[in-house]
Amino acid sequence: MANPVVIPTQIDERFAVGELVAAIAQDAQSKDVLMLGWMNKQALTQTLETGDVTYWSRSRNELWQKGATSGHTQKLVSIAFDCDADAVLLQVHQVGAACHTGQRTCFHNEIDTDFE
Amino acid sequence: MANPVVIPTQIDERFAVGELVAAIAQDAQSKDVLMLGWMNKQALTQTLETGDVTYWSRSRNELWQKGATSGHTQKLVSIAFDCDADAVLLQVHQVGAACHTGQRTCFHNEIDTDFE
Repeated sequence: MANPVVIPTQIDERFAVGELVAAIAQDAQSKDVLMLGWMNKQALTQTLETGDVTYWSRSRNELWQKGATSGHTQKLVSIAFDCDADAVLLQVHQVGAACHTGQRTCFHNEIDTDFE
Repeated sequence: MANPVVIPTQIDERFAVGELVAAIAQDAQSKDVLMLGWMNKQALTQTLETGDVTYWSRSRNELWQKGATSGHTQKLVSIAFDCDADAVLLQVHQVGAACHTGQRTCFHNEIDTDFE
């Protein structure tokens, strides 16, 4: 049996009061930021145990193993959390497109700026 | 006079119902993800107008021009929003450390995984 995963105390305290943590997925090779999802304790635990990135869908209120339907899975390479423990950064191997639109990344809409 | 900035309609609809958008700052050169902040309409407008990245501090309930106190500013290079318009990805030139701890990035705490 594998040892149980250990969720850092600072993150667990957020889960304990019903908060989710933001989860940023970054392509481990290209370094492109692919998407932003959310995790509850079950999603983070499953991700750490299996290496298959799993989010909590806020719209559907259910666990969402990325790519379970589409085949566009995310395999976890490494994971870190931020200084106030409300976000995690996932380095992943992305199979296919991260975005449901078929684009590689969800951040494919540029905004015009005015300061140039 | 510069033209007024245009906030994409999908994002503006979120602001109109009181939502914030998540804002991921990525170093435009190293591609390191530096931090996750939040923006309201005023923060995004100011960022687009000035090129000085400005967040909305949820803990202090005030605009927070990154580096205004510390000197560790973020100069906007480009910005994109995601497919469901609840997050923006900022490419920035980071002056000094992004994290208040003095680390380059806020994501400096690795989590052990169990699937290797």
